[in-house]
Amino acid sequence: MVKRGFYIGRFQPYHNGHQSVLEAISDEVDEIIIGVGSAQMSHFVNNPFTAGERIMMITRSLDKLKCPFYVIPIEDVQRNALWAAHVKSMSPPFDVVFSSNPLVVELFREEGTLVVSPEMYERGTHSGTEIRRRMLMDENWQELVPSVVVDIIEEIGGVRRLSQISKKD
Amino acid sequence: MVKRGFYIGRFQPYHNGHQSVLEAISDEVDEIIIGVGSAQMSHFVNNPFTAGERIMMITRSLDKLKCPFYVIPIEDVQRNALWAAHVKSMSPPFDVVFSSNPLVVELFREEGTLVVSPEMYERGTHSGTEIRRRMLMDENWQELVPSVVVDIIEEIGGVRRLSQISKKD
Amino acid sequence: MVKRGFYIGRFQPYHNGHQSVLEAISDEVDEIIIGVGSAQMSHFVNNPFTAGERIMMITRSLDKLKCPFYVIPIEDVQRNALWAAHVKSMSPPFDVVFSSNPLVVELFREEGTLVVSPEMYERGTHSGTEIRRRMLMDENWQELVPSVVVDIIEEIGGVRRLSQISKKD
Amino acid sequence: MVKRGFYIGRFQPYHNGHQSVLEAISDEVDEIIIGVGSAQMSHFVNNPFTAGERIMMITRSLDKLKCPFYVIPIEDVQRNALWAAHVKSMSPPFDVVFSSNPLVVELFREEGTLVVSPEMYERGTHSGTEIRRRMLMDENWQELVPSVVVDIIEEIGGVRRLSQISKKD
Amino acid sequence: MVKRGFYIGRFQPYHNGHQSVLEAISDEVDEIIIGVGSAQMSHFVNNPFTAGERIMMITRSLDKLKCPFYVIPIEDVQRNALWAAHVKSMSPPFDVVFSSNPLVVELFREEGTLVVSPEMYERGTHSGTEIRRRMLMDENWQELVPSVVVDIIEEIGGVRRLSQISKKD
Amino acid sequence: MVKRGFYIGRFQPYHNGHQSVLEAISDEVDEIIIGVGSAQMSHFVNNPFTAGERIMMITRSLDKLKCPFYVIPIEDVQRNALWAAHVKSMSPPFDVVFSSNPLVVELFREEGTLVVSPEMYERGTHSGTEIRRRMLMDENWQELVPSVVVDIIEEIGGVRRLSQISKKD
Repeated sequence: MVKRGFYIGRFQPYHNGHQSVLEAISDEVDEIIIGVGSAQMSHFVNNPFTAGERIMMITRSLDKLKCPFYVIPIEDVQRNALWAAHVKSMSPPFDVVFSSNPLVVELFREEGTLVVSPEMYERGTHSGTEIRRRMLMDENWQELVPSVVVDIIEEIGGVRRLSQISKKD
Repeated sequence: MVKRGFYIGRFQPYHNGHQSVLEAISDEVDEIIIGVGSAQMSHFVNNPFTAGERIMMITRSLDKLKCPFYVIPIEDVQRNALWAAHVKSMSPPFDVVFSSNPLVVELFREEGTLVVSPEMYERGTHSGTEIRRRMLMDENWQELVPSVVVDIIEEIGGVRRLSQISKKD
Repeated sequence: MVKRGFYIGRFQPYHNGHQSVLEAISDEVDEIIIGVGSAQMSHFVNNPFTAGERIMMITRSLDKLKCPFYVIPIEDVQRNALWAAHVKSMSPPFDVVFSSNPLVVELFREEGTLVVSPEMYERGTHSGTEIRRRMLMDENWQELVPSVVVDIIEEIGGVRRLSQISKKD
Repeated sequence: MVKRGFYIGRFQPYHNGHQSVLEAISDEVDEIIIGVGSAQMSHFVNNPFTAGERIMMITRSLDKLKCPFYVIPIEDVQRNALWAAHVKSMSPPFDVVFSSNPLVVELFREEGTLVVSPEMYERGTHSGTEIRRRMLMDENWQELVPSVVVDIIEEIGGVRRLSQISKKD
Repeated sequence: MVKRGFYIGRFQPYHNGHQSVLEAISDEVDEIIIGVGSAQMSHFVNNPFTAGERIMMITRSLDKLKCPFYVIPIEDVQRNALWAAHVKSMSPPFDVVFSSNPLVVELFREEGTLVVSPEMYERGTHSGTEIRRRMLMDENWQELVPSVVVDIIEEIGGVRRLSQISKKD
Repeated sequence: MVKRGFYIGRFQPYHNGHQSVLEAISDEVDEIIIGVGSAQMSHFVNNPFTAGERIMMITRSLDKLKCPFYVIPIEDVQRNALWAAHVKSMSPPFDVVFSSNPLVVELFREEGTLVVSPEMYERGTHSGTEIRRRMLMDENWQELVPSVVVDIIEEIGGVRRLSQISKKD
């Protein structure tokens, strides 16, 4: 029987913290489903990259992950009470959710899904913010993400886009 | 000819202030329509309870109200100019709106419905906030709501839910 | 412990078939939740009445029902996989669904809710269609609905509305 | 005091029937508001043109209309009970609606707006269908529309688009 | 060949800054398309006027503009990545966008449309805020808008509406 | 430089026709993006499976495909004019679309993307319908799909679900 775990993030952008969490999860389950949250968002200061760009970052970075994985965009639904059902309809069935986000934990628990939230998953939670800050300040953001992510962000002009949309109106 | 009055709130949760306003309104009209606003919201720090939970709180608390009443969930529409038409389509016809919310007053007035907003309806407007604060601080919130509401919130684990979703990510 | 049952229909309009089903259900449970399906629809040939009008028909017809009941508008969600969660968020908790609609049965079963669908609930399933046909043909539709429903439809000009929207463009 | 009239159509495409109706209306009011219905639709067999393309057809064809006019895209709302409020929020205020569409007539009448629906407005109601048929059959559709509409449809490759989307899958 | 330019604003309300920008643009192109942004919003403190009211303000103020123009309501789409396609579907085709809004600039550039953003277009960007402040303070807002806009705001009771919705709940 | 191709279907269910098309495409490009269309639909007679179920069918069936691939759910947008932008925002960038669906061809062509639609891609277009018919008739549907798809459909009780929702109301 295949055991599948679900992990969700916004991945704006995908970084080393995500990578190490996913590597740890790959020791626990047979297959991982990675939900790309707020998939409909892009070109915002806090959400600069499209779902497609984020899917590419994740897929390439996990080239050598020891277990198979799915990468699935999850659009926000405006109703928390429907969110767990929404995720489940978009995903292959899973047995356990790995998350330390309090709302994710609550919504899956009320819905009856096992949730595991060890402290280590918190590490780097806010790295996305730090990376975007460094991009805007022209500091070394590259050290915080896998090298293929650097390549993708360069290819799509990601830093230029972030700078442009961060200008004052 | 039956005279009906409309009253709307978010009821997060339903409390003694709402109760006394509705008892006062029951002296003025033959039937009351109680709109449960932002019905689609739940599991937010400021909107922890589902529409279904709030409907149950209201209905049970008004067991002995002297006039018949309807409890109707009203989902937000993102367009203020359509809101009065939205409410009217979801509700039995009514002759008067009881409200001291400035936007509710304006939208019904522009649409041609009589609005009454005596000062007393303001009392306890912000009690919802105070009750949720007390829940999180483990203070006495029970004294601010009807006793059946205490029962319902215990039954659904409402304080635990609110605490969980109030945690920092 | 209160046992609650859920029953859903479109009630276009509410008729004697619904009434007898609900009376039968009132022998089985302590409280009934009546979902008014496709609540957002009105002014269509097959869905002429607003949710508010239908809520009024139901509530008044059940004046003497032997158990308490809730009448709750349920807007369609375009995604079947979320429908059961949607209903549950809008309703007080319930223990059993009474339905003979195949999709309703399937969606609640997959979601884990007990569904009962005895043959008798099918009776009059299509009476709504027959009643609307009689309204348009000026035949005796009044015998198929509770007398308070006749009153309400007259008060709102329901037959005139249906005739008007049934004209060919 | 300016008297404004409202007229709505889908204009797929704008044709001589619309033109003569609007010329007649221009004798009755000081200003005309022309609603472009189902504005969100395009690239469908029955709705091939975008709102922008239809706005251009109308505006250029009415170059010499004797009164000022507004051309306003009106997206469908899925709820008939909100439609009149939706139209009114998107339009300058108007005193009268010119329409022979039974649903439009009903929705504005219930909302309290004067509706005029003389027989002549029906002429050519179904010309849109006929024009699209001729386009697909390579027959003379040009004679049914103003000459500037012919130009626009050629400029945007409208007949080619219609033929392509009409192919069987 | 007709050269068309696109200009977008929220116009809450339309003011002299907009007027002078549009007059300048009318020297550059043959036709102007004016997008009324956030068209679905009204009755908010920062967005008090409906799309219909704003369309009327713009159209009347530009009575003597030297080139033809289109005024088109543009509802927000919640997805930035679709916004340029959304605008293009609602508008006649255009060759150039005039904007100094950083996000508008980015979205059209990524989509391949020429964007011009000379400094002068910034002038008065924040006048809308200033005008609404003066309305609430009973100061001279009239000097900042065309005189026909004063007339329209008086006709619709705009200052009264803004005052009402600005009250504390 | 990586060359990516995009292929879209509803995959209700994924079958041998899809498999052979994708194998052929894998000779033409370096990476394939597979869009799962109408992702929001499930539990309909013509769309019985959820996006998650379909993603699992596709991913497992392509275990040995000779090039890397992405499987991405694509929810319907109700506006054809935005569809190509919607797909592009959800997907890694692609150079060519493989499709024989007339609307898909038109929407990508107008948007400027290269579309290839050789006859062979049509084969088996309607197999989905045939497979669902066989499921309902208890005929041999298994021969038309990869063996892992048979396993998945059995695991999720797919035939039972389809039978249930196909019952007459």
